Amino acid sequence: MDEFGLIRRFFTRRPRASDVVVGVGDDGAVLAPAPGKQQVQVIDTLVEGVHFPSGMPAADVGYRAVAVNLSDLASMGAVPRWMTLALTLRDGEGPWVGEFAAGLFAAADEHGVELVGGDTTRGDRVVATVHLSGDVEAGAALLRSGARAGDTIFVTGTLGDAAAGLRLFEEGQDEDYLVRRFLRPTARVAAGRELRGIATACIDVSDGLAGDLGKLCAASGAGAEIDVDDLPVSDALLERFGIEQASRYALTGGDDYELCCTAPADAVQGIAEVTAIGTITEGAGLVCRKGGDIVEVDDGGYRHFA
Amino acid sequence: MDEFGLIRRFFTRRPRASDVVVGVGDDGAVLAPAPGKQQVQVIDTLVEGVHFPSGMPAADVGYRAVAVNLSDLASMGAVPRWMTLALTLRDGEGPWVGEFAAGLFAAADEHGVELVGGDTTRGDRVVATVHLSGDVEAGAALLRSGARAGDTIFVTGTLGDAAAGLRLFEEGQDEDYLVRRFLRPTARVAAGRELRGIATACIDVSDGLAGDLGKLCAASGAGAEIDVDDLPVSDALLERFGIEQASRYALTGGDDYELCCTAPADAVQGIAEVTAIGTITEGAGLVCRKGGDIVEVDDGGYRHFA
Repeated sequence: MDEFGLIRRFFTRRPRASDVVVGVGDDGAVLAPAPGKQQVQVIDTLVEGVHFPSGMPAADVGYRAVAVNLSDLASMGAVPRWMTLALTLRDGEGPWVGEFAAGLFAAADEHGVELVGGDTTRGDRVVATVHLSGDVEAGAALLRSGARAGDTIFVTGTLGDAAAGLRLFEEGQDEDYLVRRFLRPTARVAAGRELRGIATACIDVSDGLAGDLGKLCAASGAGAEIDVDDLPVSDALLERFGIEQASRYALTGGDDYELCCTAPADAVQGIAEVTAIGTITEGAGLVCRKGGDIVEVDDGGYRHFA
Repeated sequence: MDEFGLIRRFFTRRPRASDVVVGVGDDGAVLAPAPGKQQVQVIDTLVEGVHFPSGMPAADVGYRAVAVNLSDLASMGAVPRWMTLALTLRDGEGPWVGEFAAGLFAAADEHGVELVGGDTTRGDRVVATVHLSGDVEAGAALLRSGARAGDTIFVTGTLGDAAAGLRLFEEGQDEDYLVRRFLRPTARVAAGRELRGIATACIDVSDGLAGDLGKLCAASGAGAEIDVDDLPVSDALLERFGIEQASRYALTGGDDYELCCTAPADAVQGIAEVTAIGTITEGAGLVCRKGGDIVEVDDGGYRHFA
């Protein structure tokens, strides 16, 4: 593989941001951090056959590789700035790389992110690692660890769409709203910015609400109680799968990339698309209710506690 | 694989640098860039079976994954600061990861680098991507593009050891000086710092001197003329392989991670361990001489021009 040919053809664009002093093409990128800001760095890898099906369109893989990292920056309240890419490919994947790059830049351009460096290597399956740097006002980064008993728990958007979409995609459908929610997740960067100074804790929902809220609770030394009937689900999910299965997807389905945050009950009024789903408690771990009864959550969803 | 268990066990250490506000464990790291400095970011991937033999000790793979990135920062004149790691592993590689982490931290600790974030994923061969951030005084980064006709070309250390070491390692030897030069390359961070304000251009020698000097020339819009007999080679390389083969390794062998820089002839006096090897010319491309005669370079070494 001609590593440098690939990089030049698909990934070299003249940076448009004035904070990129030297972009792709030297031994490293030279960047000018904004004075007085703190920097947030995130890194995430998509492995073919593990994080996305082999048949997923290359442009969607590229988009997704950026979006999952944008989501991590969103959950910290940061503004995305710079991207580096480490891409492992099989031989002879030139056309694939062109489409991958188009999707990668589509996601980057939605947020003014500049690709400033990268490394292309050869392997036997696609491994796409994206590193993003963003910035945030000093002391304003949203962490997982600030939730306090009595805080209300909120989520952005709707939950469960992506898990349902993955199932539909694997069944051969590709035009559905739910499939698109899986293929091209929306990172909640604007919501993350709005939540600075308001949310006491925040995490993005990548592994499923129950698991990720559990991580937020563990980091905060607190517990949580939510009601499954309060989880926001889309009309598309409801119509396609009914309320029982929709709730299961919403509670444990991964890949939604919505934000889950905590705040005093009246603090998040006016922030677009957030829904209250429960309360932070003194305890530890997650208690799930459904219509008042406690239900037990496992990877497959939940069952009545017995 | 329990991703979070692995990360916690092997990669979580309390950061010792005060510029790490939040390290491993949240959605991202929160970092405080030094006021007035520019940032240099580099990313490099090692793929098992491509960049290192499958039998290479895990600790050496970890060390090397950091060292190759330190070398890129060195060639820019930057001070290394923060590291993120994206590690793809086969199932059941817990012991391997422990040794890998020990090597990774050994390289990082030599330069006070903090691991601030990462992602561990499952695949069918090891893919280790390291991202490093460093900082450099504004405008002082060493680029490939500044070489001018008449500049002298210098290299640090000795060349060819790593390529010879890889051959010996593949033949089953592992205690040799040359093998060690392959397994644990020394990133020339201090030399890179010394070269700020002195070198007109700089690149690290990762793919072999001929190829990397060629890239420096292309970026600078200049040519280069060197004499193979001037290339610095170690006593170990000479004794083991003789002058002919040593010169071939020095000219085209990869993995040395020495610096190749250009500067006015008298400018680099007093910088430790640099050797003059040739001159930048008005032309394009690399002209190699040996005892006055022009020789032609290819991947296997050089042959007399005919």
